Amino acid sequence: MILTVTLNTALDITHRVPSLRPHASHRVSEVAERPGGKGINVARVLAALGHEVTVTGFAGGTTGRILRERLADVPGLVDALLPVEGTTRRTIAVVDETSGGTTQLNEPGPTVSPAEWSAFQEAYAALLPSASAVALCGSLPPGVPVGAYAGLLRTARAAGVPTLLDTSGAALRRGIAGRPDVLKPNADELAELTGSHEPSTATRDARRRGAGAVVASLGPDGLLALTPEGRWRATPPARLHGNPTGAGDSAVAGLLSGLVDSLPWPDRLTRAVALSAATVLSPVAGEFDRPAYEELRERVSVQREASAA
Amino acid sequence: MILTVTLNTALDITHRVPSLRPHASHRVSEVAERPGGKGINVARVLAALGHEVTVTGFAGGTTGRILRERLADVPGLVDALLPVEGTTRRTIAVVDETSGGTTQLNEPGPTVSPAEWSAFQEAYAALLPSASAVALCGSLPPGVPVGAYAGLLRTARAAGVPTLLDTSGAALRRGIAGRPDVLKPNADELAELTGSHEPSTATRDARRRGAGAVVASLGPDGLLALTPEGRWRATPPARLHGNPTGAGDSAVAGLLSGLVDSLPWPDRLTRAVALSAATVLSPVAGEFDRPAYEELRERVSVQREASAA
Repeated sequence: MILTVTLNTALDITHRVPSLRPHASHRVSEVAERPGGKGINVARVLAALGHEVTVTGFAGGTTGRILRERLADVPGLVDALLPVEGTTRRTIAVVDETSGGTTQLNEPGPTVSPAEWSAFQEAYAALLPSASAVALCGSLPPGVPVGAYAGLLRTARAAGVPTLLDTSGAALRRGIAGRPDVLKPNADELAELTGSHEPSTATRDARRRGAGAVVASLGPDGLLALTPEGRWRATPPARLHGNPTGAGDSAVAGLLSGLVDSLPWPDRLTRAVALSAATVLSPVAGEFDRPAYEELRERVSVQREASAA
Repeated sequence: MILTVTLNTALDITHRVPSLRPHASHRVSEVAERPGGKGINVARVLAALGHEVTVTGFAGGTTGRILRERLADVPGLVDALLPVEGTTRRTIAVVDETSGGTTQLNEPGPTVSPAEWSAFQEAYAALLPSASAVALCGSLPPGVPVGAYAGLLRTARAAGVPTLLDTSGAALRRGIAGRPDVLKPNADELAELTGSHEPSTATRDARRRGAGAVVASLGPDGLLALTPEGRWRATPPARLHGNPTGAGDSAVAGLLSGLVDSLPWPDRLTRAVALSAATVLSPVAGEFDRPAYEELRERVSVQREASAA
């Protein structure tokens, strides 16, 4: 199975309002709710692709209970979340139907106790022998040490399990020391990590900091990958119009899917870009449009670039 | 016991953010969550005053389950909510810590089926013989007929139970035909009902439309009451600074409390204004500050006004 780790799971709520005006009262015209957090999103895409996938991390309180009930409805997904005393956070995306803009409210997440963090590390180590790959995704909840991902990456390396890291800020800066096999930053995260807004320079710098391969997601410009086997740029066939929510998580799922299927890098990138684009095109935020995915797989462009590394 | 009806119960969530900017992403610095809907708020205040109180209305889905779990923790409050197939709404109040302003997002509430509405009417009729007063509070969820309150008021009248109605819009316009013993509109609701922004004129008009007594809450100006026994203005001792959330619900609780204790109107109004003011002064939104309440009861001014009615 593929293991995805989401230490700060979330119940993702989407509210549609005709027009958001600060300090006013709004009737929400439409409500959607689903389990979230990056690793959960990645797992859902992997399960839809037919992979066996296990999710771990923390869930607690009433929102944690709702989250786990919803996860039980996802075929092919195994819930190995650990209970915590605190309450799983909600994220609320308020979509303004007039402007199309989204205002995001993210609760902080439960405070994880030292005992809960120890229990997680044990449970994680026990899951690794069954894992063909592990993805460590998203923010750290309060109480989890900022170097958490570095430790989890080392445990996976010791168990011989390939790793992918997708996080931001201090968790990324400290996590990269654990030498992930694949680092999947977006343009902002890459610039924050390296201080460079030039993707070629920044991916090289990120790789020097400890990542085996760096796959940077550049929004509509697709992916830029710097790997031990070479450097590629993978782009969708055309500018896509739609909702980019979850596109990065779908790219992670594509990379993991290609990794466990032992595909060469260009084919992994094709899968990642097609899934990501099919997510932008889906009418439901964070889902991918399967016919679009099948069609896009034939039309993604992967160009080998001269490596200056 | 006092019966409060909340057909559109809610799970009230408060998010504090440093500053709310549309189309931006925000970390919520503080989260609070509690059972809500006007009748639930009224019941919580009544229970805190030592009254036996029963809440009825609808609750459903995961939010309904959380709501009922939280209600079970309120001493003196009996939960007689009916289950519905749909999901109880959330309301989200986003408090901007810089401006102090609140942006409100209200989910629509579950769609109540005709069978569920019939079941409610039966359960309500069965509760009335034990009730010393009944308050019908708040908005109607989708599926409940707009004339619902008129019917519920007539059932209570037939059972000899005194009634209070606190709602707005069409539910108020149609509900008043059921001749509530007390109507408790705020200034906006009163103006919308009568077309007059002049409280004396508007309360007279509202009374002519069918209310036994009209007690208008005029924010910092206190209460204006037009009753069969006369007309009074009740005001707090000074301009209050604080959070007015729930002040109107506390006023309703004060009126009901005074009614079941058979107090004369001036004393009911004193209780209502003191509770309302003590709610504004409380550091926790919607709670009342008990020492402030005890102190304010001595200092509320109730002036009899010449009635032109």
